[in-house]
Amino acid sequence: MYEGALQSLIDELGRLPGIGPKSAQRIAFHLLQVDDADARRLAATIQRVRDTVTTCTTCFNVSEQSTCRVCRDERRDPTVLCVVEEARDVVAIERTREFSGRYHVLGGALSPIDGIGPDQLRVRELVARLDDGSITEVILATNPNASGEATASFLTRSLDGRGLRVTRLASGLPVGGDLDYADEVTLSRAFAGRREA
Amino acid sequence: MYEGALQSLIDELGRLPGIGPKSAQRIAFHLLQVDDADARRLAATIQRVRDTVTTCTTCFNVSEQSTCRVCRDERRDPTVLCVVEEARDVVAIERTREFSGRYHVLGGALSPIDGIGPDQLRVRELVARLDDGSITEVILATNPNASGEATASFLTRSLDGRGLRVTRLASGLPVGGDLDYADEVTLSRAFAGRREA
Repeated sequence: MYEGALQSLIDELGRLPGIGPKSAQRIAFHLLQVDDADARRLAATIQRVRDTVTTCTTCFNVSEQSTCRVCRDERRDPTVLCVVEEARDVVAIERTREFSGRYHVLGGALSPIDGIGPDQLRVRELVARLDDGSITEVILATNPNASGEATASFLTRSLDGRGLRVTRLASGLPVGGDLDYADEVTLSRAFAGRREA
Repeated sequence: MYEGALQSLIDELGRLPGIGPKSAQRIAFHLLQVDDADARRLAATIQRVRDTVTTCTTCFNVSEQSTCRVCRDERRDPTVLCVVEEARDVVAIERTREFSGRYHVLGGALSPIDGIGPDQLRVRELVARLDDGSITEVILATNPNASGEATASFLTRSLDGRGLRVTRLASGLPVGGDLDYADEVTLSRAFAGRREA
């Protein structure tokens, strides 16, 4: 409906995840109306991300160097490895400041329906990292959903017999939530995993 | 939380209207993971919009030339002028294919609390367009909310005594809506504006 470049921008924005046609139009007009420098800075930053951001050769987290910030940090415990699906899960865990070990980013979860098997994930690379025996615990921090659980079960079986401690994150009631809003599965897990008060 | 360029991109995206921190992160990772060409095309399109899109010197619609597509179209009726708040309202009206006149984009609505008076809108330019007497009807298509109504009232008074037909878009029940979901003001307007069946 719009002329040339403006319509192209609305189309491009509409391809981004979670951006519908109305939002795309709103953002396009915003980019048309803000200071020239602000709009061009966004464009330049998109290009800069593509130029500079790569994946860590050790853990496959996002990084601007060949090894990521976590892998470079020598104060981090090299004996505990936390396995996550995506790089953004690393940031979610780092935000808690509870974990001081290293990470391994699988790059997704098992999903046969989408053609994602162990070979599409960085499972071989995970196993290779365990070979020198310095890692003693692997925490499986995949998502608490069907494909995340399937991935965790698969990895538990794959890592069996190596004398490793393999753990899963606890399931239960989210802190700050209402008990009567919890779904049955979560509530069942909370019962199963109950602790001494 | 992220390194360098990726965090900058999340910050820049978070400044866009309707994009919260989670969406910004999701879009940034999307732009990191899609084909290089797709990400760079978005960046290039933002820059192209800033380079090429300007406002029509006649009606202040968005345009890539000094006069917009509507103003250039000689089949459009030059005697009827539809006054809207924003350029995106032009597209909304064009989509109906009901209006064949010309437009005038005010660039907003009166809002004393935001310091927007008649001088901040293109009211003087509107009055200037009426001077040669070729326009015989002005349709005030400002938004059906407080500031839109105030703008329409102001323009009605300003255009009084010029021998023009000045009209407002009809208010009433939205087509396809449910009567019992309509608010009182809309329902009152629908009664006041009732027509012979």
